[in-house]
Amino acid sequence: MNPLIDKLRATVGAPHVLTDGDLGAWEEDWRKRVRGKALAVVRPGSTAEVAAVVKACAEAGTSIVPQGGNTGLVCGGVPDDSGTEIVLSLQRLNAVRGLDRDNLTLTVEAGCILQSVQEAAEQAGLLFPLSLAAEGSCTIGGNLSTNAGGTQVLRYGNTRELCLGLEVVTAQGEVWDGLSGLRKDNTGYDLRQLFIGSEGTLGVITAATLKLFPRPAASLTAWAAVPSMEHAVRLLELAHGRLGPGLTGFEVMGRFALSLVSKHFPQQRVPFADESPWGVLLENADHESEAHARAQFEGLLEAALEQGLVTDAVVAENLAQAAQLWHVRESISMAQAQEGLNIKHDISVPISRIPAFCEETDALLVREIAGVRLVNFGHLGDGNLHYNVQAPEGADGPAFLREQEDRVNDLVYSQVRRFGGSISAEHGVGALKAGTLPDYKSPVALSMMRAIKQALDPKGVFNPGRVLHR
Amino acid sequence: MNPLIDKLRATVGAPHVLTDGDLGAWEEDWRKRVRGKALAVVRPGSTAEVAAVVKACAEAGTSIVPQGGNTGLVCGGVPDDSGTEIVLSLQRLNAVRGLDRDNLTLTVEAGCILQSVQEAAEQAGLLFPLSLAAEGSCTIGGNLSTNAGGTQVLRYGNTRELCLGLEVVTAQGEVWDGLSGLRKDNTGYDLRQLFIGSEGTLGVITAATLKLFPRPAASLTAWAAVPSMEHAVRLLELAHGRLGPGLTGFEVMGRFALSLVSKHFPQQRVPFADESPWGVLLENADHESEAHARAQFEGLLEAALEQGLVTDAVVAENLAQAAQLWHVRESISMAQAQEGLNIKHDISVPISRIPAFCEETDALLVREIAGVRLVNFGHLGDGNLHYNVQAPEGADGPAFLREQEDRVNDLVYSQVRRFGGSISAEHGVGALKAGTLPDYKSPVALSMMRAIKQALDPKGVFNPGRVLHR
Repeated sequence: MNPLIDKLRATVGAPHVLTDGDLGAWEEDWRKRVRGKALAVVRPGSTAEVAAVVKACAEAGTSIVPQGGNTGLVCGGVPDDSGTEIVLSLQRLNAVRGLDRDNLTLTVEAGCILQSVQEAAEQAGLLFPLSLAAEGSCTIGGNLSTNAGGTQVLRYGNTRELCLGLEVVTAQGEVWDGLSGLRKDNTGYDLRQLFIGSEGTLGVITAATLKLFPRPAASLTAWAAVPSMEHAVRLLELAHGRLGPGLTGFEVMGRFALSLVSKHFPQQRVPFADESPWGVLLENADHESEAHARAQFEGLLEAALEQGLVTDAVVAENLAQAAQLWHVRESISMAQAQEGLNIKHDISVPISRIPAFCEETDALLVREIAGVRLVNFGHLGDGNLHYNVQAPEGADGPAFLREQEDRVNDLVYSQVRRFGGSISAEHGVGALKAGTLPDYKSPVALSMMRAIKQALDPKGVFNPGRVLHR
Repeated sequence: MNPLIDKLRATVGAPHVLTDGDLGAWEEDWRKRVRGKALAVVRPGSTAEVAAVVKACAEAGTSIVPQGGNTGLVCGGVPDDSGTEIVLSLQRLNAVRGLDRDNLTLTVEAGCILQSVQEAAEQAGLLFPLSLAAEGSCTIGGNLSTNAGGTQVLRYGNTRELCLGLEVVTAQGEVWDGLSGLRKDNTGYDLRQLFIGSEGTLGVITAATLKLFPRPAASLTAWAAVPSMEHAVRLLELAHGRLGPGLTGFEVMGRFALSLVSKHFPQQRVPFADESPWGVLLENADHESEAHARAQFEGLLEAALEQGLVTDAVVAENLAQAAQLWHVRESISMAQAQEGLNIKHDISVPISRIPAFCEETDALLVREIAGVRLVNFGHLGDGNLHYNVQAPEGADGPAFLREQEDRVNDLVYSQVRRFGGSISAEHGVGALKAGTLPDYKSPVALSMMRAIKQALDPKGVFNPGRVLHR
């Protein structure tokens, strides 16, 4: 037997060190792009056990891949195929440690499912606003490690803006208790922000203190038909001015993306489907009343109609209608999967440059690859597009990916660079983009990142080859 | 002559390397606590010149103290008295590089005065919300280096939450162009957040891309008389729920602090001065109209009166009245200076624990030091108090500081630690608190901070002894 495995069994209990049977749930990534092989899956039950596992692995020279709900999209939380990496699953660290109503904070362990965190806040009459498609499976530790985005970033920021403090196990197996519930603390470098978004390469987040918010009295959803991306940007400006922080969501969806929803989920009603090149989903949260929210929202949409920014619009009459509208938005990913394989991009550019970016990049791709189809949708309020490239109709999907993926990525990412954007807006780098990153990231920044990795994890215990490739 | 000085003169031009005459404006700190002696004050005019200065100093083994408006409160931006440190003043880098309306961003150089940044936003009909007492003199580079707080943190966050990108000169004299206007970018470690708040010890911030916001249609100010700190916390909760993000300010002021304003500035009217142990200043920003803001604000205060949370309240009728109310708040620092020397603390604790913290700590100090007077005011909405300790009436101020400062700091900071707080909420560490920090900060955090300092600035070029003491 491997003496490390024995030690890990003694540390966390034999039932929590998995080496046999089907470990696919931990070894295969969410999108089923890669399947690795772990030396073992280790499931500690406390922060002290995490620290002991890290110490044991560091001594044995064995790498650790921290994992939450395994819903990542960039293969950052699954082992490679060497059979030498330990998967450190945080799933058993799932306690809600405490809610402080007057301080508007919630302290939870890393393995809490995002939806449970939302519910813990809701039970206290408060709001934890992070919301994304995988919220029923992803964990808050994974959200923090990848600085998850989602649909409420426009108003509440990314995950890094929702966190006031962390508890982290370092590469030396020490526990940093930084679980501050403080909104202001200027006593040195912001280690919290360094760990957030570092994708498990600098330390293991074991718990966090999160910001809560008062729940709005009402939250309304509207759908607007918009003639162009330029009009969508103008509508965003108008909505910002009239609703201020009441504007909590602003999603844009291209006609082809919506047509896939109509095609594969015919029971869903896509508003203004044939009339308009773009649909925009807006959300307005109001602390006064539903009636006030409705008056404000209708006022905005009337002004937008008058100014020619939208050609038609509807405000959901009730929660069921609002849920239907959001369901259309959330069905795009599934609909494009039904249509066949495609090449996904999670990009951002400054909002002001999005219309030109789309116009130029659409034209470029259509010119370079005959018949290519563009599934373009995303969080326009954050400058973040899921700019996905689908094989021509009837084409062989796997063959298209094999032949075109690198070329399409080059074309799209070169455009992103030209427009001052990012090749990973909210999904992270993981293993998937670690090799590509140096082509698009400043060498000065990369060299600082390597220096920091070396400083905090000199033995390279945590997630080697992810974010910073070997 | 010193060959480094010659080289610096050749780099930035002789008139911008100051070695003679009265250099007090750069050598003495804002509060006139310390006066150092610089080898030279160097005033580069471009990022490239900053890089050249850093390279030359690094080669010569000469330390650099970056400086903005020299308004810091913790002696972090002035040279020591060795005569060997270069003051690197960013004052000449004061261009507004560009405003992107659709992207809601503003790119400015580090030496821009904060008020100029506010005005640049205002001219475009937009808002840059950072606001603090020194805004007419402090620079945005200094605000970023110290992660400045101020009066709008409750709604808009600290300076770190207002910055989307940085340009930084590293300790190797390289320029990192991280001037992204992106709201989402998950391509590696958040270097931006590492430099923000690092007080010039890791690199020199030369420019920044800042977030702008739509300007509210109206912003109203109210003053409420509150019977206790516990009632103030309840009022905060009520205001959060009713106004949501419309609540942009929540300042608390103790009776003694306000009595000093009445005493030293008798022309100022302090509302409800004799009736109430605490005054609360509230601000409500509204994107609809002044009438709507007033109705909301009055509704809140009526509910608070009914619930017994406030004993009296007034909403300013116009901008002049609002300015008068804010002026009272802002006059506290001057009034306590008029009253004599005092021992200042810039602390934070979780908001829920502030009432107990104040009750216990007040009692402790009064017991330990006969006749001591407490000037307690601050940003309650952020859990941040300026908990200042004034000598007994008629006492010799300098003697009081000499005899009691260390003891008072020990008492207050021990209480802060007991309540899970921070010994520097918004002012930073600088040279003033670098020696004290290890007594109150986690050793694991300090050891990570030292590792990062060593990784990014191995020669110790930037601001040695500040934040991390030698």
